[in-house]
Amino acid sequence: MKAEDKRPVVKLSCAAPAAEFTQITLSHGSGGTQMRQLLQQYVFECLNNDWLQKQEDAAILQVEGPFAFSTDTFVVSPLFFPGGDIGDLAVNGTINDLAVSGALPQYLSLAFILEEGFSSASFLRILQSIRRCCAAAGAAIVTGDTKVLERGKGDGIFINTSGIGRLRVGVQLGVSFLKDNDCLLVSGPLARHGIAVMSRRKGIGFETSIQSDTQPLHEICGMLSDALGTDLHLMRDATRGGVGTILHEITSQSRFSAEIEESALPVEQEVAGACEMLGLDPLFVANEGVFVAAVAAHKATEALALLRSHRFGQQAALIGRLRSDLRAPVVLNSTIGGRRVLPPMRGELLPRIC
Amino acid sequence: MKAEDKRPVVKLSCAAPAAEFTQITLSHGSGGTQMRQLLQQYVFECLNNDWLQKQEDAAILQVEGPFAFSTDTFVVSPLFFPGGDIGDLAVNGTINDLAVSGALPQYLSLAFILEEGFSSASFLRILQSIRRCCAAAGAAIVTGDTKVLERGKGDGIFINTSGIGRLRVGVQLGVSFLKDNDCLLVSGPLARHGIAVMSRRKGIGFETSIQSDTQPLHEICGMLSDALGTDLHLMRDATRGGVGTILHEITSQSRFSAEIEESALPVEQEVAGACEMLGLDPLFVANEGVFVAAVAAHKATEALALLRSHRFGQQAALIGRLRSDLRAPVVLNSTIGGRRVLPPMRGELLPRIC
Repeated sequence: MKAEDKRPVVKLSCAAPAAEFTQITLSHGSGGTQMRQLLQQYVFECLNNDWLQKQEDAAILQVEGPFAFSTDTFVVSPLFFPGGDIGDLAVNGTINDLAVSGALPQYLSLAFILEEGFSSASFLRILQSIRRCCAAAGAAIVTGDTKVLERGKGDGIFINTSGIGRLRVGVQLGVSFLKDNDCLLVSGPLARHGIAVMSRRKGIGFETSIQSDTQPLHEICGMLSDALGTDLHLMRDATRGGVGTILHEITSQSRFSAEIEESALPVEQEVAGACEMLGLDPLFVANEGVFVAAVAAHKATEALALLRSHRFGQQAALIGRLRSDLRAPVVLNSTIGGRRVLPPMRGELLPRIC
Repeated sequence: MKAEDKRPVVKLSCAAPAAEFTQITLSHGSGGTQMRQLLQQYVFECLNNDWLQKQEDAAILQVEGPFAFSTDTFVVSPLFFPGGDIGDLAVNGTINDLAVSGALPQYLSLAFILEEGFSSASFLRILQSIRRCCAAAGAAIVTGDTKVLERGKGDGIFINTSGIGRLRVGVQLGVSFLKDNDCLLVSGPLARHGIAVMSRRKGIGFETSIQSDTQPLHEICGMLSDALGTDLHLMRDATRGGVGTILHEITSQSRFSAEIEESALPVEQEVAGACEMLGLDPLFVANEGVFVAAVAAHKATEALALLRSHRFGQQAALIGRLRSDLRAPVVLNSTIGGRRVLPPMRGELLPRIC
């Protein structure tokens, strides 16, 4: 099977196809002639590679040693927002799930649910984002699927990506590796993605220069784990639910509490203003290019310097530490000198943020 | 990472949880407390295993040698139909994509898109199907994702599964291995899934005893490839678009045409009647447990006997052969002695059949 069909990659352009249609129709999901046209003219044209060209039911891959496997579905609304679109999220989201697991992202699947009437121009624009993000992350779309819903049964486009990546040598990440007094770092400023999406949402929209932070974290995560080895105990990307939710996840899955310094939280001024206006706590607003790391206390300064040396980590911060002697899961020392318990998020702050 | 957290599998029951809610709400997709409850009480309770218990962003796996990777999204309507439901399809569909690729299915991801208001009882019923089908196929759900849409932006539940499976030793499958005069077999009777779903569709519904053929093909595919080795040239499961679409796919991707004997096509009487009533050609109606195989001509009799010896292949049939001397891609010798070109499917016969 591996020897099969070594046709060269013919083309990597991603121009608009000779438009035979301007909207997705039900027949694009039929498995028949029109679906093949959609795949050929749009998907394969844009994401061309040997695996996709074979058009088999599965891609044949090989990974030496242990690998990470992750999945994520994207239903963000609106589809296009300042700093990105659903295509960026779909690639970077899964890249980042692999990256924080200590893996080097390699192979992605790509599955579309399209709504009848969705514009082919928007589809092409999203495919171009997918192509760009895959190239930036050095990952390839190797297998896929397309379904079409009747008008009114979906909302334009939903995307699932699943991903595979070889585990980096020597990483040991997970809640079971956490230690008392571990330092907690965040790799960048909070809440940008959530606020950027909300700024374009119907009924809420406001003028802002805030852009989504959607970006691939494999490089910065890899740099950190290579430098720290087993002194890096855990990484989690702080998407839905934000950094606050990650802190609650970590503490609920381990025997530790988290003590956080509010004054250390990196929140850009315009983001802070928007959060105040919307009544949101930036700790619980989504990011798409920020992760939380727990590192051995004696490596905290080195880790912070490393993160800040990377273009995606310039505003990294040491925000607190793990403790085994606190009663509440997450405690916040506030900027005005108070000390309060940070409750987990209940209800839904920002539906369809990713 | 591999050494981490060897907690035993605690429980494999799948009883209804103490109902704190009867419907999915937006907060079940928030990443916060309610989402954790939904996962704990429903998903993990039902699909419990070491990978899911870790609740990390990715599962860590290892596969020796080459493996197959596939993805499929399921948007079938209605969700429950004679012989199965969307949960069965979501597992068996990806199992079968791996199986026809010559792989032994091992690991699946599971991603839900739920609509606000979807009943928790239906969700549980679907999870139970997923659990049952995974057990039957010997595969495990190792990672997942859950998103929730506002009421009216989805249609109850959509499911994506992606899958990984070790490639069987010695398989060489794909259009580039096809040879002139290869025999074409189907593993079972045509069109049952499509007709079963249509029988329950709004505005079409009719009384029938026809059940979907949703079933896992890894065993029967494995048996065939073990016995035939490199004399088995290609397998494809004939889902959307049916066997007719697979024949057009194969011929469009190779230099061969397919010559089919209409009298050899296995179509159950009640299915044939329903197809006639609905104006459908069973060759283009979906199956969920039938595959097409191309085998070296001298192995056709052995292959047919093997297929028929398996419980999922009792009605297997030799339906035709590949030829390099025909002008049309697919030619059908009809039961009344005629000979006609079989055109590919255009338009959409049966939207949302899987």
